[in-house]
Amino acid sequence: MYLEKIKKPNDIKKIPKNALPDLAQEIREFLINSISITGGHLAANLGVVELTMALHLVMDFPEDKLIWDVGHQCYTHKILTGRKDGFANLRKFGGMAGFPKTSESDCDAFNTGHSSTSISAGLGMAMARTLDGKNNMVVSVIGDGSLTGGMAYEAFNNAAKMNTPFIIILNDNNMSISENVGGVSSYLNSIRTAEAYIDLKDEVKERLASVPRGEMMIHGISKAKSKFKNLVIPGTIFESMGVTYLGPVDGHDINAIVKVLKNAKRCKTPVVVHVLTKKGKGFEPAEKHPARFHGAEPFLIENGLPSHPKTKPNYQDIFSTVMCKMGGINDKIVAITAAMPDGTGLKRFKNMYPDRFFDVGIAEEHAVTFAAGMAMGGYIPIFAVYSSFLQRGYDQIIHDVCLQKLHVVFAIDRAGMVGSDGETHQGIFDLSYLSSIPNLTVMAPKNKWELADMLKYAIRYDGPIAIRYPRGEAYDGLEDHRLRLTYGKSETIYEGERVCLYAVGSMVKEAVVIRERLMEEGINAGVVNARFVKPIDCKTIDKIAKKYELIVTMEENVLNGGFGEKVDSYIEENSLSTGVLNIGINDTFVEHGSVDKLYEVVGIDADAVIKKIKDKLQK
Amino acid sequence: MYLEKIKKPNDIKKIPKNALPDLAQEIREFLINSISITGGHLAANLGVVELTMALHLVMDFPEDKLIWDVGHQCYTHKILTGRKDGFANLRKFGGMAGFPKTSESDCDAFNTGHSSTSISAGLGMAMARTLDGKNNMVVSVIGDGSLTGGMAYEAFNNAAKMNTPFIIILNDNNMSISENVGGVSSYLNSIRTAEAYIDLKDEVKERLASVPRGEMMIHGISKAKSKFKNLVIPGTIFESMGVTYLGPVDGHDINAIVKVLKNAKRCKTPVVVHVLTKKGKGFEPAEKHPARFHGAEPFLIENGLPSHPKTKPNYQDIFSTVMCKMGGINDKIVAITAAMPDGTGLKRFKNMYPDRFFDVGIAEEHAVTFAAGMAMGGYIPIFAVYSSFLQRGYDQIIHDVCLQKLHVVFAIDRAGMVGSDGETHQGIFDLSYLSSIPNLTVMAPKNKWELADMLKYAIRYDGPIAIRYPRGEAYDGLEDHRLRLTYGKSETIYEGERVCLYAVGSMVKEAVVIRERLMEEGINAGVVNARFVKPIDCKTIDKIAKKYELIVTMEENVLNGGFGEKVDSYIEENSLSTGVLNIGINDTFVEHGSVDKLYEVVGIDADAVIKKIKDKLQK
Repeated sequence: MYLEKIKKPNDIKKIPKNALPDLAQEIREFLINSISITGGHLAANLGVVELTMALHLVMDFPEDKLIWDVGHQCYTHKILTGRKDGFANLRKFGGMAGFPKTSESDCDAFNTGHSSTSISAGLGMAMARTLDGKNNMVVSVIGDGSLTGGMAYEAFNNAAKMNTPFIIILNDNNMSISENVGGVSSYLNSIRTAEAYIDLKDEVKERLASVPRGEMMIHGISKAKSKFKNLVIPGTIFESMGVTYLGPVDGHDINAIVKVLKNAKRCKTPVVVHVLTKKGKGFEPAEKHPARFHGAEPFLIENGLPSHPKTKPNYQDIFSTVMCKMGGINDKIVAITAAMPDGTGLKRFKNMYPDRFFDVGIAEEHAVTFAAGMAMGGYIPIFAVYSSFLQRGYDQIIHDVCLQKLHVVFAIDRAGMVGSDGETHQGIFDLSYLSSIPNLTVMAPKNKWELADMLKYAIRYDGPIAIRYPRGEAYDGLEDHRLRLTYGKSETIYEGERVCLYAVGSMVKEAVVIRERLMEEGINAGVVNARFVKPIDCKTIDKIAKKYELIVTMEENVLNGGFGEKVDSYIEENSLSTGVLNIGINDTFVEHGSVDKLYEVVGIDADAVIKKIKDKLQK
Repeated sequence: MYLEKIKKPNDIKKIPKNALPDLAQEIREFLINSISITGGHLAANLGVVELTMALHLVMDFPEDKLIWDVGHQCYTHKILTGRKDGFANLRKFGGMAGFPKTSESDCDAFNTGHSSTSISAGLGMAMARTLDGKNNMVVSVIGDGSLTGGMAYEAFNNAAKMNTPFIIILNDNNMSISENVGGVSSYLNSIRTAEAYIDLKDEVKERLASVPRGEMMIHGISKAKSKFKNLVIPGTIFESMGVTYLGPVDGHDINAIVKVLKNAKRCKTPVVVHVLTKKGKGFEPAEKHPARFHGAEPFLIENGLPSHPKTKPNYQDIFSTVMCKMGGINDKIVAITAAMPDGTGLKRFKNMYPDRFFDVGIAEEHAVTFAAGMAMGGYIPIFAVYSSFLQRGYDQIIHDVCLQKLHVVFAIDRAGMVGSDGETHQGIFDLSYLSSIPNLTVMAPKNKWELADMLKYAIRYDGPIAIRYPRGEAYDGLEDHRLRLTYGKSETIYEGERVCLYAVGSMVKEAVVIRERLMEEGINAGVVNARFVKPIDCKTIDKIAKKYELIVTMEENVLNGGFGEKVDSYIEENSLSTGVLNIGINDTFVEHGSVDKLYEVVGIDADAVIKKIKDKLQK
C-alpha cells in the first residue's frame, strides 16, 4: 500500500520508480470507492491520475504553481498534497471542496470552477514571478474541451508574446463534458494519436527517400524546422501562434510524461505539452459513459448505476419534454447549448431534430450572439445554459440580443443554489444581472407545470426573454394553480391578511410551507407568485401594499440588484405605506453543501424567514 | 463626379469599371471633408473604401447579408446604400449613426459596436438561411484587431464545423485601434505580404527543382494539398481549424478583391478571405497616426490637427498623470489595457515602465483573469477599461477576482454617457453589474482631484475595487472639497434643509447647479457626494433621512440595480420617514448625440431634475 505513504506534498518522490504504476492503481481504486459513496467528479479525475503524479514528480509544490482549468479534475492532486482524508466529506458543507481552493492548501495556486481561465491566470502568475526575478515554474492544465472557450485563446495569443517560462498542459481526452465540437477539436483529433504522427512522418520520408539526394533533403527539412515543421510535426496551430509545442505523449505512461515535462521545464518561453488521456480510465462504466460520470451522484461500483435512482422528474426533464413537443409543432424552434446537451436536457431534442440543434462547445459568448443571428434570420433560438455560465455572455445579451430586441429565449438552468459544486457554480446573480438590461423580460416558474407554461409562453412571445429555474427535482405542488400567464402579471395563490409572501420561482414552494406555519401561529399570511421579475407587477404591489401590513419578498438570488430591491424602490418612490422585508442572499458568495443546508446558511430557510417575519411584525 | 450617381443600393454596379478608382478617390475626399467637420471614425473607413466597393460589386444587397465587425468602418457602405446625405448629421442626436443600424437601412443586416461579434452573428444568419433553403450569401467583415477577441475564435471554431456557405473577410491592417498585439498578430504579419508568400513558395520550388524528379514532386505536393499546403500556402491557422482560406489580396486593388470574392462566393463551406488594407489610406495624417484618427474630433484638413484643441485636461489625463507618479513610487503597480493605451491614457505609463505595462489586445475576459493572476503573484494590477467593454469581463470579475478577494483595481473609463458613439458604447450599466458582486468596492469621483485621490486610495486598499469616471473634460469645480477618503463614507458638500441631492460621481457637478437654482427658488437644498456606491453609507442615509424631507439620488446609470435602488431599499427596510426621488436612466438604451443632449433626452439634466423635485415636493 503505497498510498498510505503519501501524507504531504512531495511524498510521492520517495516512492520507488517501479512502484508508481501500483500507486496509480491504488489512487484509482480509492477515487472509485470514495466517489461511489459521496458522489463527485469521477471520469475527469480517473483520466489524469498519471498526469498528476508526473507533475508532482517533476515539479516542486508549493514553490512551483499549478492551476487546474475548471478544477474538477484536481482530486489526485488533493490526494498527493495530503488531503486524502478530506474525501470522506467531499463537497459537503464545511468539508473539502470539489475544486481547487487556495484556502485549503498552498499547493492550490488559484481557485477555479468555470472553464478556460487557467492560461490567463497562469500567465499573470508567470509574469509576476518574472518581474520578481524568481524562477519557480507555473503550470496550467487545460482540457481540450476548455480550449473551445474564447478566453483560452485570448490567453494563448498573449502567452505567445511573453518571453517567459510557462507550461500549458493540454489534457486532451477528446471530450468536453459531452462530446467535443468544433474545428479545433477536429484538428486535435487529427494529431492526437502518436500513430498518425508517425505515419505522416514516414510518408514524407518515404516520398523523399524515393528520390536521389532524398536523405539530404530529410536532413535539410529537419534543419529548416521553422518553415517545414508544419509538414512533419503536429501542433502547427500552437506553433503558428508562437507557442512551442511538445507532444503528443501518452497520458497514462508516467515515465513518458515525466520525460516531456522535464523538457518543458527547460524551455525559456511558454510551451504547450500535449498529453493524451482517457476520461474514466480504469473504471469501465465511466470509460463507456464519461458524461454520466462527469459530476456523478453516489453509484454502485459493480455496475455504475446510481445508488439512489431519482423517482420524480427534475426541471431538466420537464424542459426536455416541452422542447421536444414544441420542436415538432414549430419548425422555427432551434436549440443551442454550450457543451451541456446532457445537463440541460437537450439531448432528446438533439436526437429528434438534429438539424435544429447546435452544441457550440464551451463558448457562451458565441452562443448568445449566434442565437441573435438566428433570431435575426427568423428562427426562435432557445439557449439552455446554466445561470453562472451565462455570466460569460452578459455583454452579448445586452449588445447583440436586447439592443436589437431579438426573440431569443434564455432557458436559465441551475439558477439559485446548486449545492455541492459550490461558490463558482451557484446561480445567484442572474436576477440582478438580467434585470438591469432594457428590453429583457425575466420569468421564474413556481413548479413543473409553470415551467412548461412559461417555456411555451416564451416561444410565443416576440422579444428577448429569460426563464430561470433551479437544479434538481421539480416541485409538483400547487398543481391546481395554473392561471393563464399574462405579461408582467403575478399570480395570487393564497389570500391572507397581515403578511404577504411575495415569492420568486423556487421560493414559492418555500412560501407555501412558511405560510402554513405562520397560520398555525395565528399570523394570517398570503402567498403571491411573482412569475415576472422584470417587469415587476406594479398593480399587484399597489394592491398588496394597501392590504397587508408586511410584504416579504423572497428570491433565491443576491439581494443586491434583485427582485426585492425593485419592489422596495417602487414602494418607496410611490410612498406606499406597508412594511417590507427582503429575503434573499446577503452580499456574500455561497460555499458548497447540500441545498437545504445552504438555505440555512444564508438564512432563506423556513425557520429563518419566519423568525425575521415575526421580528419585523413586532417592531 | 461618379459619387453623385450613387443614390441607392447597387447603383455602383452601373459605374464603368475603369471609373471605379475615380469613385474610390471621390469617396475618400468626401469622407475626409465630411469627418473633418463632424468628427467620426476616419482611419478605419479610409482603409476599406475599395473593399466595400468590391463587396457591393459582387454581392446583391440587401438580399445578401453584410455584417461589419465593430461597425465603425461602415461609412463607405452607408454611402453606397444611399445614405451620403446623412453624413451632415453624422453621430448627432436624431442624425445618422456612426455604426450599422438595421433601423436605418435594410442593407445593414445586424447592429454592431463592440468587437468580435460578427462571425457569431453571421454564422447564425447563415444557418438560418440554410435551414430556410435559401441561397443568399452572408458576409462578415472582421479586422485583425477584432480577431484577438476570444469570441471570434469561438465562432471560427464553430464555423469550421458548419457545412454552409459563409464568407469571413479578414480586413488585415495590422492594427487594433492602437498597434496590434499577440501571437496571432505576429502570425498574420508573417503572411500578410504577398511577397512573403511568393518567397516561401519559390524557396520550396527552388529546393525541389535542384533535385532530380523535383518537378514531379512539385506536382505531387500540389496534389496532396491537404497534407502539404501548410508548407506552401499561408493561412495554415485557419485551414488547421477547418476553414478554407483565400488570400492574401491587396485591399486597395478593386479588381483583385472582386476576383477573390467571386471565388469565395462559389465555396459551399465557410471561407476566410484575407484582405490587406492600410488604415488611413489616402490621408497622410491618418496614415501616420491612425490611432489619433480612430474616433476623431473635427480637424483641419491641411494638417490633421484638431479644429478645437482641448483647453482643459480630461479624466484620462488625470488618470495618466497619477498612474505615472504612482508607478514610480510603487514598483508593484502594473497597468493593463485591452487595446486602449491611447484612449485610457496609459500610453505614458507604457513609455515610462514598459515592463509593467500589458496591452492584451481586445480581450477583456483574459485581461481580468490575467490581472487576477498578477494580483495572486503579489502585484497591484490596474486594469483601465471602458465601462461598456468591461461587460465582457463580468464573469471573470466575479469568478477570478472577487471570489478570491484579489487586489485588482478597475479603472472604469467612459462610464455614463459617451455621446456620439451611441447605444453600444454608453457606460450606463456598470453600477448595476458591479454592485451585485460580493467583495467588490465601487467608487465614483466628483472631480479631477477626487479621481486622483481615489486612484491612490484604490492602490493602497487591499481587495477588488473599482473607480468609474466619465469620458471627456474633467470637472474642476469644488476644489476646496477634498475631505480625506474614508472607506464607505460619503462627503457632505453643502448642508441644506428640505432637499438633499445625494449624487454619484459625475452627477455631483449637476447637483451643484441644481442646488443653486433651487436656492434661488427658495428651496433650501443640500448636496452629498456619495463617493462609494458599494457599500452604501448607511450612517449618512440615516442622518439625511432624519433631516430632509426629500432625498434625491442622482446617478448616470440605469435605475435598475443602481445606486438609487440600494438607497431606497435601505430606507424601506429600516422604515425611515423621508421621501425619495431616484434620478437616473429609465429602463432604456440611449442613442447617439451630444452628452448634454442625451442628459435632456433621458431626463437627468438640471431642468428635468428640478421639475421632478418640485412635483415631488408638492405631492
